[in-house]
Amino acid sequence: MSETLADIGEFGLIRRIRNLIEEASPHDSSISVGLGDDTASIIPSQGYEMLLTCDCLVEGRHFLSQWIEPFDIGRRAMVVNISDIGAMGGLPRFALISLGLKPSMLVSAVEEMYRGFLEELKPFGGSIIGGNITRSNEKNFIDITLIGEVEKGKILHRSGARSGDSILVTGYPGEAAAGLEILRKSKPEKGLKDNRLVRAYSLPSHRAWEGRAVARSGIAHAMIDTSDGFLGDLGHICEESHVGAELTQEKFPLSETLKKASQELAADPVELFLGESDDYELIIICPPSGVDDIEKIISEVSQVPVTEVGRITDKAGVMRIILPDGTGKLVFPSGWNHFSD
Amino acid sequence: MSETLADIGEFGLIRRIRNLIEEASPHDSSISVGLGDDTASIIPSQGYEMLLTCDCLVEGRHFLSQWIEPFDIGRRAMVVNISDIGAMGGLPRFALISLGLKPSMLVSAVEEMYRGFLEELKPFGGSIIGGNITRSNEKNFIDITLIGEVEKGKILHRSGARSGDSILVTGYPGEAAAGLEILRKSKPEKGLKDNRLVRAYSLPSHRAWEGRAVARSGIAHAMIDTSDGFLGDLGHICEESHVGAELTQEKFPLSETLKKASQELAADPVELFLGESDDYELIIICPPSGVDDIEKIISEVSQVPVTEVGRITDKAGVMRIILPDGTGKLVFPSGWNHFSD
Repeated sequence: MSETLADIGEFGLIRRIRNLIEEASPHDSSISVGLGDDTASIIPSQGYEMLLTCDCLVEGRHFLSQWIEPFDIGRRAMVVNISDIGAMGGLPRFALISLGLKPSMLVSAVEEMYRGFLEELKPFGGSIIGGNITRSNEKNFIDITLIGEVEKGKILHRSGARSGDSILVTGYPGEAAAGLEILRKSKPEKGLKDNRLVRAYSLPSHRAWEGRAVARSGIAHAMIDTSDGFLGDLGHICEESHVGAELTQEKFPLSETLKKASQELAADPVELFLGESDDYELIIICPPSGVDDIEKIISEVSQVPVTEVGRITDKAGVMRIILPDGTGKLVFPSGWNHFSD
Repeated sequence: MSETLADIGEFGLIRRIRNLIEEASPHDSSISVGLGDDTASIIPSQGYEMLLTCDCLVEGRHFLSQWIEPFDIGRRAMVVNISDIGAMGGLPRFALISLGLKPSMLVSAVEEMYRGFLEELKPFGGSIIGGNITRSNEKNFIDITLIGEVEKGKILHRSGARSGDSILVTGYPGEAAAGLEILRKSKPEKGLKDNRLVRAYSLPSHRAWEGRAVARSGIAHAMIDTSDGFLGDLGHICEESHVGAELTQEKFPLSETLKKASQELAADPVELFLGESDDYELIIICPPSGVDDIEKIISEVSQVPVTEVGRITDKAGVMRIILPDGTGKLVFPSGWNHFSD
């Protein structure tokens, strides 16, 4: 079972993957041309808009091969895309997978990655309809384009936040950042795979079911997933909605696990919460009168906690935190420059 | 103007690209969410199927940075995708661009690449609706997902070829392979950019207008672009259609330019024609009674020559060439293993 891509070649690999996908996939009458042609074809559902997103994971930057199994790499790559579709209120339907692979890659590892993609698509009845495989000599990369559908008029944008709105967040942003720090400071053999924080980084949950429920309710004004970190993505909402934000630090959902790990990592849990962290939670903006309903709607589809952490203001682009002592502090999204060292 | 990505950062770059795209793009009412969100949204046209394809170019493998300007890299990357949509009979409409970029990359070079993408989309009224930018430390890569539309029932598949059908090909396959060989044997400063064969490789033409005209006519049984080389792609048709092919070598469209270059390269022009070559011509399979009409239909949209080079047979998977002396030779697609050295 140590067969590599160099052994079976591009078309050998494509044939294997195709068999694997076809065995796993339910018949979907909206796919008129699936795998086999260079181009797939789908018949769009009437009354729906199509959502399209793409996210790329590069080995060493977005996943650390020594820390994560191929099956989980596949799941993670799909989760980050599902998260984007879910944050608009949509259901994931069709995926195109573009892989750049090293010739030394094991065929069995590529197959496991595909099993991971399919595992995440399955609950939605989603299919892999096409893609591309190319050789990449230095690093593997996985680029997924995911197509979703949402009923016309039900999309939640970044641009709908209004002054006075409540700012809600799901789950515990910052846990993934702590998990990544733990990995960086540890040796691969240290058996951390089941550590809650490490898992928050390696295999985050998407909130697509929650996002869809919120969008269908019509209560929220804006929504985004925290793929650029809480402050980064709240910043996107402020920018697109031409508003500001005032956050109350004491309300931040900092889990006990995160606080404890922060001590060990000599890190500030508030900074982990605010900064870059691959949690894929949702930031939901809604009128204060809608907060209880949003909490109820989410509790009907999931156990993830929802926390109100602040309010939208009319000060465009200004993000401010009220500290526990009552004083205010301006904050700015950090980590927005992935191109500098 | 020597600003790099490390200077302006990911979001600085995104802002610049967004401005560039928005200035260049016509208003398209079928785009309900464009650039700005993580996810784009489109309203599908009624009575149409959506075509989806993705192709990835990796620096050093699919383009040689020392030989091609960023503007032409952008055009080339879009052309290979347009070719796939065109070979199904569709019109390109929406593109998602996923880039892996080195931090040392010049901002102006990335902008030029986008101008190249837009240049190729423009004749179709196509738009860039989203994408992703990530850091890639070793090699740049460009992964495009292109979405097209085609009237329901008008798609041309690979699987429709029938025994007795004529095999037609557009243009002069093999010229791109010769161009690549010329580049490999030359020094970058040698000023070969305008060489016909080098251009056939660096900036191939797509045949989307021709493909669309053929598909709408309803005359052809199957069609494919020659992105894996003539024999490679004819092989795909034979495989998917469960048929074979008999080719007549004397009929192959070998241009004088190709023949002359072959002598200089000590290469066989027939092998260049048959083998891996990035020409993006069309192979069209139609009943013999339809050949004249196909030629006429194509001549109405373009000056590209169309040549009948053989017949489909009932010998599934068998491809045979009739040599000038009347004897036959079995042939097999070469170059299908991009993962071995």
